[in-house]
Amino acid sequence: MCEANAYIRRNGHDELVLEAVDKLIPENNQVSMVNIFGQQKIVKARVIELSLVDHKIILEEITNL
Amino acid sequence: MCEANAYIRRNGHDELVLEAVDKLIPENNQVSMVNIFGQQKIVKARVIELSLVDHKIILEEITNL
Repeated sequence: MCEANAYIRRNGHDELVLEAVDKLIPENNQVSMVNIFGQQKIVKARVIELSLVDHKIILEEITNL
Repeated sequence: MCEANAYIRRNGHDELVLEAVDKLIPENNQVSMVNIFGQQKIVKARVIELSLVDHKIILEEITNL
């Protein structure tokens, strides 16, 4: 399987948000994800990097100004 | 290998932009990609969907208003 793990990058450290992500849709300042186990997660974030060979999706939180 | 193919969605049809994408970075209304063969491509677009089990990255062109 070729899913990837989604992490939020905080202060240079990557925290796991959802493992084995299959589908990801970014919209309206949030990212919706569903993994291969059917778990869904929506986070207020944007995609800053994909590194698929490493199975990594890196997100950054969107904070209100 | 767990790379994905990047497509631009136009009128409901997905056109291949770059195959076997490893790294992808969205920034400043563009998406930079590098594939496992070292080919690089930058397109004026945004990510609208990832479907990793299907090895698909779907982009949408950003057109000037």
